[in-house]
Amino acid sequence: MANKAQVLYDFTAEPGNNELTVKEGETITITNQHIGGGWIEAQNSRGEVGLVPEDYIEHCGIVQNCCLLCLLTRKLQPVFMHVTLGAEDDEWDDEWDDVKSSGGYAESESGESGAMQRGGAHGSSMKISLNKFPGFSKSGPELYLLCKQLVKGKDKLPIYMGEVGPVWSYPETQLDCVVADPKKGSKMYGLKSYIEYQITPSTTNRPVNHRYKHFDWLYERLLDKFGSAIPIPSLPDKQVTGRFEEEFIKMRMERLQGWMTRMCRHPVVSNSDVFQLFLTYKDEKDWKTGKRKAEKDETVGVMIFSTIEPEAPDLDPIEVEQKCEQFSRFTRAMDDGVKEILTVGQEHWKRCTGPLPKEYQRIGKAFQNLSSVFNSSGYQGESTLTDAMTAAGKTYEEIAQMVAEQPKKDLHFLMETNNEYKGLLGCFPDTIGVHKAAIEKVKEGDKLVATSKISPQEKVTMAKRVSIMSYALQAEMNHFHSNRIYDYNRVMQLYLEEQVKFYETIAAKLRQAHSQFTTM
Amino acid sequence: MANKAQVLYDFTAEPGNNELTVKEGETITITNQHIGGGWIEAQNSRGEVGLVPEDYIEHCGIVQNCCLLCLLTRKLQPVFMHVTLGAEDDEWDDEWDDVKSSGGYAESESGESGAMQRGGAHGSSMKISLNKFPGFSKSGPELYLLCKQLVKGKDKLPIYMGEVGPVWSYPETQLDCVVADPKKGSKMYGLKSYIEYQITPSTTNRPVNHRYKHFDWLYERLLDKFGSAIPIPSLPDKQVTGRFEEEFIKMRMERLQGWMTRMCRHPVVSNSDVFQLFLTYKDEKDWKTGKRKAEKDETVGVMIFSTIEPEAPDLDPIEVEQKCEQFSRFTRAMDDGVKEILTVGQEHWKRCTGPLPKEYQRIGKAFQNLSSVFNSSGYQGESTLTDAMTAAGKTYEEIAQMVAEQPKKDLHFLMETNNEYKGLLGCFPDTIGVHKAAIEKVKEGDKLVATSKISPQEKVTMAKRVSIMSYALQAEMNHFHSNRIYDYNRVMQLYLEEQVKFYETIAAKLRQAHSQFTTM
Repeated sequence: MANKAQVLYDFTAEPGNNELTVKEGETITITNQHIGGGWIEAQNSRGEVGLVPEDYIEHCGIVQNCCLLCLLTRKLQPVFMHVTLGAEDDEWDDEWDDVKSSGGYAESESGESGAMQRGGAHGSSMKISLNKFPGFSKSGPELYLLCKQLVKGKDKLPIYMGEVGPVWSYPETQLDCVVADPKKGSKMYGLKSYIEYQITPSTTNRPVNHRYKHFDWLYERLLDKFGSAIPIPSLPDKQVTGRFEEEFIKMRMERLQGWMTRMCRHPVVSNSDVFQLFLTYKDEKDWKTGKRKAEKDETVGVMIFSTIEPEAPDLDPIEVEQKCEQFSRFTRAMDDGVKEILTVGQEHWKRCTGPLPKEYQRIGKAFQNLSSVFNSSGYQGESTLTDAMTAAGKTYEEIAQMVAEQPKKDLHFLMETNNEYKGLLGCFPDTIGVHKAAIEKVKEGDKLVATSKISPQEKVTMAKRVSIMSYALQAEMNHFHSNRIYDYNRVMQLYLEEQVKFYETIAAKLRQAHSQFTTM
Repeated sequence: MANKAQVLYDFTAEPGNNELTVKEGETITITNQHIGGGWIEAQNSRGEVGLVPEDYIEHCGIVQNCCLLCLLTRKLQPVFMHVTLGAEDDEWDDEWDDVKSSGGYAESESGESGAMQRGGAHGSSMKISLNKFPGFSKSGPELYLLCKQLVKGKDKLPIYMGEVGPVWSYPETQLDCVVADPKKGSKMYGLKSYIEYQITPSTTNRPVNHRYKHFDWLYERLLDKFGSAIPIPSLPDKQVTGRFEEEFIKMRMERLQGWMTRMCRHPVVSNSDVFQLFLTYKDEKDWKTGKRKAEKDETVGVMIFSTIEPEAPDLDPIEVEQKCEQFSRFTRAMDDGVKEILTVGQEHWKRCTGPLPKEYQRIGKAFQNLSSVFNSSGYQGESTLTDAMTAAGKTYEEIAQMVAEQPKKDLHFLMETNNEYKGLLGCFPDTIGVHKAAIEKVKEGDKLVATSKISPQEKVTMAKRVSIMSYALQAEMNHFHSNRIYDYNRVMQLYLEEQVKFYETIAAKLRQAHSQFTTM
């Protein structure tokens, strides 16, 4: 099956690594999509074959020998439509029109978002709706810092002082959910089809169905509402190659599960109306009503801070700035650390699935070949040695296979976790950016009062509110740290456990092979 | 240290294998001699660096920054001198003049022998003195097949019928010897120096000293005397680079030990006067006398067959030819098998000492870097995770080192054994060639009688003698098979045993690293 793809970015092959140098705009043929570790194998027009990072390519839509299903559902071109808010007919549209139902405000997003923004686990930035309200397009945090009336009522978000410092209010039982059972659905008499996932929350234990586009809608809502205070990680990739293949569906489900788990774990996100709607809507009517309500929510962007109530004295502006600097440094350093692991892991993946098993296979074959030569000697008493050598050769072939399959058992999870964190860390510059802008605004306080831009009372309010923002940022960082410690403990344990099993199995196989040789 | 070398043969780098393409005659700079596995790292005149097989290069003698010792003892150019047989002054010459004391007969050898022939373990042919006696230069086996008077007396070599067929007469106790204690000796007031090895035979338990050139003399004698019937493997390499370095001396000693062990194990070779002289000479006078006697030995070349006495009925010429064909096929097939293992092993060696440990090191560093980022979080309760991650990182650095050092513990011996067999198998075409020539001569029997070239009686004698030759070849093949089964059993056991230890140690290290993570 000739599977053409277009190169999105230049990629220079590292010599001796079985990679293929490609240029932006070049058309290549995908020869193997199942390399794993973020690689695909492709052939260029000169017939050269090699590995290319899968992020660097996009399916051309020049699909030959492909089923009608694929053809119809494949996103040929990113289409950005602006639909009327709450329009009925966007409800069950298929994935390819990729509707953003955030309404006419999304203008500024249409350029860069879509494919790029939704780099999923690989994405590295989120788009916060700072300019949701006309007139404040360039002065995001002011909207909150200087607003007259704050939100009241049930939506208040308290912050407590915990052992580690400011913390969000955590529920007694942590919400959880299971994403499972992906099913192909279709509409328009089978001409349009999609994958529907079943999501079962631990609270109700009642499954609801959602398509990827619903997840996407949820993501947009969460980003609008919480993005200024809480990094909302991108959804997993809108992958372009082979989207209906089993492996892809499995991988997407795994990543959607990871994303949902992270959202469930967040006390603020998981408790929000929109998230609860997504998990527990009763029927289509319920869903539509809730959807419209969520889309009309005005406590979005920086206004989220207006709902936050720290139970602690106001912070000194210098401390606010120091904390912010510290978080900025940390997240940048961790971003580097995570990317290093991903780079190393990607290289290791390639070696473990390519040259290394090939070599073990050749060792195995060489032993077996020599064994069969020995068998032809005509000398008596040959078989004890040749049986043992053949067994040893076969053992190395088995080891070859184990080596090739191992990354999917351990490195995969290490990569997935670090990919998730790469996505998450990519959101921090925006969140911290809002914070820094607010700090700058507060610093200008005296000047603004002097030039009568604001009243002295407003200056006091600004300082108080930037303190609230700082509490929110600290609570969020503490949430991040606690999750990070949990996640890395878990993934390192899993990785090392599987590695131990792997080496122990090899040792046991070789011990068995060894026992077949006679001691003379 | 700029260490220049000359390229002996073209070598084309395999892409992606960190190899360097070199042309015959090219001068390269050796940048690392300690790669192992038959590789050295070198730089060409264009500054490109990569691996080159060490067999493919020869030291130029353009040595910079090298000690006087090296400079003086390094073989600058192969020098082939013809000295008078038994001349006194060749006795303690240093290695560089590389004298062949086989006298004026060595003419035909001087061209190709030396560096090439003594490819040592890597060599693949031996030079049998078929033309030792003028007038028979092109009709080797005839010398024996048609000679009037056979050797008599104590030098008879019986062949018995054993369980596996014709076998040499084996001694009750197998001779063995230990090559040890290499010492630098010098002469000419310290201007010329050499390495002297101590050889202690199991029979006398009294050590004798020999230099490499004495081993070489012994090799020449054994080749002259037994080469038509018994494959005499070449001596280990006359290595050109770094000959006085500790590692080289150790390696040469190990290979001389291997060569001596093989000779000791051979019932015919080990029982010969010249071999006994080498192992048990009492003093310099004893040595010189024995040396001269050995050099005058006339039972050399095909005449060795005149001493062989099989205790079995004459063989049918058709059976003789079939056996010969069978041995020829087997040794050629085994030669291929052995070379395949060597090629694969050499590749594996390179990967295990190069890219693989580098990758484990990078994984280890990546874990440690992330751990130290975590440490900077300012979040409390960080240390359990960071300590565990640092330990895991260090474990991967340890694994990197283990991987890099492992080939010396197992692959080395597998390579050495196969190298030895490659050398041994390279001798068979000559041995079998003598045999085939004899068979052809016997086939011409009727024609030779008809044209009165030989008498009818001589035709009968020829058939009888080719049967003797066949018994010798069969005895030798049986000796070879029995040794081969022993050697491969032993080396495979050693290899697998070390591999088991290696993987078990890694598993244990990782289990230890795993235990440091907390279960939360």
